[in-house]
Amino acid sequence: MPRAVFDSAEYDRRIARTKERMAERGLDALFVSDPANMNYLTGYDGWSFYVHQGVVVTRDRDEPVWVGRDMDANGARATTTLSEESIRPYSDDHVQSPHDLHPMDFVAAVLEDLGVDDARVGLEMDAYYFTAKSYTRLQKNLAEASFEDTTLLVNRVRIKKSDAELDYMREAARISENAMQAGLDVIEAGVPEYEAAEAIYSVLIEGTDDYGGDYPSIVPLMPSGDHTGTPHLTWTDREFEDGDPVIIELSGCRHRYHSPLARTTFVGDPPEELSRRADIVVEGMEAALDAVAPGVTCEAVEKAWRDTIAQYGIEKKDRIGYSMGLGYPPDWGEHTASLRPGDETVLEENMTFHTIPGLWFDDFGVELSETFVVTSDGAEPLADFPRRLFTT
Amino acid sequence: MPRAVFDSAEYDRRIARTKERMAERGLDALFVSDPANMNYLTGYDGWSFYVHQGVVVTRDRDEPVWVGRDMDANGARATTTLSEESIRPYSDDHVQSPHDLHPMDFVAAVLEDLGVDDARVGLEMDAYYFTAKSYTRLQKNLAEASFEDTTLLVNRVRIKKSDAELDYMREAARISENAMQAGLDVIEAGVPEYEAAEAIYSVLIEGTDDYGGDYPSIVPLMPSGDHTGTPHLTWTDREFEDGDPVIIELSGCRHRYHSPLARTTFVGDPPEELSRRADIVVEGMEAALDAVAPGVTCEAVEKAWRDTIAQYGIEKKDRIGYSMGLGYPPDWGEHTASLRPGDETVLEENMTFHTIPGLWFDDFGVELSETFVVTSDGAEPLADFPRRLFTT
Repeated sequence: MPRAVFDSAEYDRRIARTKERMAERGLDALFVSDPANMNYLTGYDGWSFYVHQGVVVTRDRDEPVWVGRDMDANGARATTTLSEESIRPYSDDHVQSPHDLHPMDFVAAVLEDLGVDDARVGLEMDAYYFTAKSYTRLQKNLAEASFEDTTLLVNRVRIKKSDAELDYMREAARISENAMQAGLDVIEAGVPEYEAAEAIYSVLIEGTDDYGGDYPSIVPLMPSGDHTGTPHLTWTDREFEDGDPVIIELSGCRHRYHSPLARTTFVGDPPEELSRRADIVVEGMEAALDAVAPGVTCEAVEKAWRDTIAQYGIEKKDRIGYSMGLGYPPDWGEHTASLRPGDETVLEENMTFHTIPGLWFDDFGVELSETFVVTSDGAEPLADFPRRLFTT
Repeated sequence: MPRAVFDSAEYDRRIARTKERMAERGLDALFVSDPANMNYLTGYDGWSFYVHQGVVVTRDRDEPVWVGRDMDANGARATTTLSEESIRPYSDDHVQSPHDLHPMDFVAAVLEDLGVDDARVGLEMDAYYFTAKSYTRLQKNLAEASFEDTTLLVNRVRIKKSDAELDYMREAARISENAMQAGLDVIEAGVPEYEAAEAIYSVLIEGTDDYGGDYPSIVPLMPSGDHTGTPHLTWTDREFEDGDPVIIELSGCRHRYHSPLARTTFVGDPPEELSRRADIVVEGMEAALDAVAPGVTCEAVEKAWRDTIAQYGIEKKDRIGYSMGLGYPPDWGEHTASLRPGDETVLEENMTFHTIPGLWFDDFGVELSETFVVTSDGAEPLADFPRRLFTT
């Protein structure tokens, strides 16, 4: 029996909204290969995105069609309610074939079978896992089709969350709080970075007393010391040292929904200057959160942050957040709205953002983040965790 | 100071071998976007592959050129020995831009600056993270360039491991052994799947008494019960039940080098038929390992497995293994040689494979795997873990 992550009415609404966008753009079919979009439209879940796969939505068919590797068809049966004729597996010899055979040849045949081989077909041209070769093979196989770039079409449908989605994000936030506490508890001089990673990971998967955690789309990041200026380094065997600032960024995950959270800690007694900067980051973050309301633009939220730090003589024009929720490695971001200058997206209720402003200087950085949902009353942060510089 | 994962002579050899292959194909430049290939050629390491990035190798330049997001340039400085002029960061407004701006526009400018904008340029057309859009943007920006598909060019250089690489894979194997034992120890009726995942993950990162573990490219997989036929489902809140077969597939990781290991366990007393099948899998696996020697083809190794199970009336023609080592999510495989019918790759010393034969029936599956290095004496499995069906 399929796992019931959402009821079928929710998937129906998602597909209906996707079809509306397709109609607006005059599209007959959509080939969705972003694993988060595949999940969003069908519930499909599995670590199978290392091979080519996708979901086809056509305007005149109720159900989407899952296309993937034969050994993953049972995964589609287990995690979706798609009927058997909507599960189209390709044989294993398509996988990393040394011969002139590619999974997209099979996808092309499916599109032909669905009668859209000479139609207007949307492709997620810049989505993870939709490679250049995927595109050229579809072009070669479907000379009559007219392809459109629909990279963010489904992502834009995802931007407003349902109550059921928000419930999972709140569950993820509980996990994030527990994991952050575990990280802060373990970090001290002499502890290797991997032990902090272990403490955090352990809680991310153990979850809470009531439920476990899913794997996050991004591993816990905790740049320390000199490396607070290198945000995407992962842990090593290095031991934390007295005088290290450490930035912890992590996310709990439930049914692929995330609630990222970041805090900065300091090994030993923090220099006054660091504490002062941390206070500025907190103040700027709170100004940004206070600016959130339905009808406000994304860039206005960033401006509230920027104006606040400007009072302290700091000039900075960065992206300080982005829309997010459902995700697979390598990212939990939705790649749609960003809290940055020039982004005029208007906030609406039930949008969710991860806002992660930071200040980096030559010597060290301070970062702080919240995941929030836009409500009629403003920003509701999903996690409840003190906003300050921590010390070991 | 950069982390010293390998000495500079090793990187020099890798680049020299890559340039030989480029020369054979008449290529002036190579744009490498597979994160494993980027790491292989420069040492670059970081969770930054969720944005566009790459390494450019040209025939007449000693050093490769790293191209990535500005906030990751410090990561390139921290993990490579590239000179400052070989680190080319693009500004943050290229990232998920709502305007007509794409990181590949910057890559095109770098190729121009390197004087290869009208040359023969190799692109990894089917590599993870090299999207269709990346390709069309390069095409648009570099109308004079002639592009060639070089998807596996660097991967093929990677296939034979150096002693230093094998050392890391052996270290990863120690972690795999510990993690497998932790998983087997915790699984029993009433334990939720996520608790087993937590026990395994905890050891994967805690590593051994001597060193920690890196994040594996694939999360621990442990399909159980009915789901042993759905190999890529990840853990849930479900509790293991008496009568469940559970397949555990995991890998320790050191400096991005893996040594995957899989075993099957049974919750309660296994039915005789399952034990019998497990014995067949072990016998078939050992026949395959015995067939390994320099000079033997990949398909001959698979045939040894197939002939063995055929003696028990089982007919199956599958890929039972693949070349692997260095990797980033979503995969630790190299996508070059496969142990399957039709693959005539000839085994050479220091090649490394993960062989994972399995038997699936309507009711349940049995799987067993080893990571081995090809030596003059045959296959040397990297892990030392009993080959049998386990019980709780």
